[in-house]
Amino acid sequence: MQSSAPIITLTTDFGQRDFYVSAMKAAILSVNRDVRLIDVSHDIPAQDIMAGAWVTRNSAFLYPSGSIHLVVVDPGVGTTRKPVAVRIKDQIFVGPDNGIFSLIADQEPYDAYELTNTSFWSNERSNTFHGRDIFGPIAAHLSKGIELEELGVPLQELISYRWALPVADNEGIQGWVMHIDHYGNMITNITREMLEAVTSKSPVKIYVGNSILKEIVRTYADVDTGTPAALIGGSNHLEIAVNGGNAEQLLSGHKGMPISVLFRK
Amino acid sequence: MQSSAPIITLTTDFGQRDFYVSAMKAAILSVNRDVRLIDVSHDIPAQDIMAGAWVTRNSAFLYPSGSIHLVVVDPGVGTTRKPVAVRIKDQIFVGPDNGIFSLIADQEPYDAYELTNTSFWSNERSNTFHGRDIFGPIAAHLSKGIELEELGVPLQELISYRWALPVADNEGIQGWVMHIDHYGNMITNITREMLEAVTSKSPVKIYVGNSILKEIVRTYADVDTGTPAALIGGSNHLEIAVNGGNAEQLLSGHKGMPISVLFRK
Amino acid sequence: MQSSAPIITLTTDFGQRDFYVSAMKAAILSVNRDVRLIDVSHDIPAQDIMAGAWVTRNSAFLYPSGSIHLVVVDPGVGTTRKPVAVRIKDQIFVGPDNGIFSLIADQEPYDAYELTNTSFWSNERSNTFHGRDIFGPIAAHLSKGIELEELGVPLQELISYRWALPVADNEGIQGWVMHIDHYGNMITNITREMLEAVTSKSPVKIYVGNSILKEIVRTYADVDTGTPAALIGGSNHLEIAVNGGNAEQLLSGHKGMPISVLFRK
Repeated sequence: MQSSAPIITLTTDFGQRDFYVSAMKAAILSVNRDVRLIDVSHDIPAQDIMAGAWVTRNSAFLYPSGSIHLVVVDPGVGTTRKPVAVRIKDQIFVGPDNGIFSLIADQEPYDAYELTNTSFWSNERSNTFHGRDIFGPIAAHLSKGIELEELGVPLQELISYRWALPVADNEGIQGWVMHIDHYGNMITNITREMLEAVTSKSPVKIYVGNSILKEIVRTYADVDTGTPAALIGGSNHLEIAVNGGNAEQLLSGHKGMPISVLFRK
Repeated sequence: MQSSAPIITLTTDFGQRDFYVSAMKAAILSVNRDVRLIDVSHDIPAQDIMAGAWVTRNSAFLYPSGSIHLVVVDPGVGTTRKPVAVRIKDQIFVGPDNGIFSLIADQEPYDAYELTNTSFWSNERSNTFHGRDIFGPIAAHLSKGIELEELGVPLQELISYRWALPVADNEGIQGWVMHIDHYGNMITNITREMLEAVTSKSPVKIYVGNSILKEIVRTYADVDTGTPAALIGGSNHLEIAVNGGNAEQLLSGHKGMPISVLFRK
Repeated sequence: MQSSAPIITLTTDFGQRDFYVSAMKAAILSVNRDVRLIDVSHDIPAQDIMAGAWVTRNSAFLYPSGSIHLVVVDPGVGTTRKPVAVRIKDQIFVGPDNGIFSLIADQEPYDAYELTNTSFWSNERSNTFHGRDIFGPIAAHLSKGIELEELGVPLQELISYRWALPVADNEGIQGWVMHIDHYGNMITNITREMLEAVTSKSPVKIYVGNSILKEIVRTYADVDTGTPAALIGGSNHLEIAVNGGNAEQLLSGHKGMPISVLFRK
């Protein structure tokens, strides 16, 4: 039986109107033309490391075992920030060590390697496009069975960024919007677990800007069209949405906006 | 001889900057990692069911026999709207029963099944992301040869949305803009057949807002640059375009705008 | 050993919310369902031939030998502009003869054929969508081993567009912005070779609108955040960027903007 082709997923802030995505794909295929390329996103907001980290966190571990995740949001390209490859559970990650892997590496043990063995890089090496010149070729070599250990030297600790953590007290939970999605849904840093610990004790109301939401509903259409709703979204975080509308616009939302979940008196 | 990998096409309003596309692709690959994924669009306008229906209608039947079309524009996710799989001619469709399949199901007989057999769903089941939790896994199981009949129970009738139909009388045809494409071309609900029935009788002129077009041309560049043109586009519908420009902008076009094709006196 | 699937790359201005990309992919797969489709870009600005040419120039030759590049930015569709297939070095290109291949055909010898053999076209032939009806099927037939020579008749010379060339004198180099990328980086027509010939003689300063940059740096982060930088980008051209920002916005940049590299007195 023929074995399945290895998978490389692609997550970048390259946008889709330039040659950057194509050059990186070509660099991969020229090392291993039989690899499967899965486009995750090339529309991570430019240089937004945490947005790339959020996408990676919420999908990478759903892929088949042994998948390779190329994640390139790299404002420090060409500086002393390190190129790395990281093994976490049964998945492999390749990209710059700039915090992009924070939201997965803070949850699980990891084996990280700084990519110092230039024999696996491209022959051409710009100072501004390591997706093509380093990360793409490295991912392709990994897909051919090269071990992480051959790519460089062990790295003790990855750069770590964190979101502000929500604060719980005897009034409820104070959290913040950490991501706003394509639909305008405002996703907070309050997790399902935190929320259920609170809501099991008492009914709550949710304060969002000048709006007060009186309950946590199951899904968008549980409220009237055009009405804000608080619910647990597909990432298992509390999110504020508007049924058939855009919460960011309706509620003048923004990243960092405070969201309060308070016990009803 | 090795048989070709089955095809799953992906049409969504997920946008391209979040984890939604990736999570759905991962959910598919974790059931059948050898399936071919073909990105159709993830930029269907948010919650615009008819825009998704239009894209599906104009491309699905061009694919090789047995292709599976995953179409997820799903504002009613988590409510009582039914998840369905539908066989139409030699193609299979998976998505919410909310009208998204209207523009193909109104033209051909179909076999529809409500997806009630949860053993083919993902183990994790959110109320807000059935692309990942239901539709993706179902499409993947279909690609492995599971029959529609195993997925649930027969459904007599799909939800049906329709465009307003054009009105023909002895003055000509009154139609409406039903889709505006990426170039700003305004595509009407007047089909080639209707138009040819009329134009075979008499020359026509076309009224679009305050503009009058004096003939139906073959292609964009049959008129001067910057000039509006009426022609039959790639979908076999009458469309209003501007050579080298954007008709929506030039003519203040919008969905629902009336377009009149009138006999010349 | 099974041979690798042939590669067709896709570069268009179709956008991603219509059926155009899907219909072209389907047209290809219905001729050769085992070909690999690699999305390069569908977001080339509408009808911007030179933007498509720039993307093609900077990535096509990085692909494995024998790859087929389908490049469809086609404002003259349906007119007398010729459909062509072109062999340049070890790569094959398919698209309209409207200048889209200028930036590669001006550098290398080429074998061009006008696509006149309609037996390799789709049976359906609109006047407005040759991506689906001609170029897609032709690329698919090429991927099955059909020779260029069978597709039509030799064409002596492709339509050629060129950028303005930079002007060098004993003051320095006068160049122009020819492309602005997704990050707002302004890429000039001044190549690495031209620049190094000048900078080897004397230190330079760079004039961009009202700003003067005092040196050419290695990478974006060699200047402070929010500060403009001049550097050689991934395409080996001089570009003007802003570390952590957007040069187009900060410097009110536009295509055609003059950039002067002058010797320091």
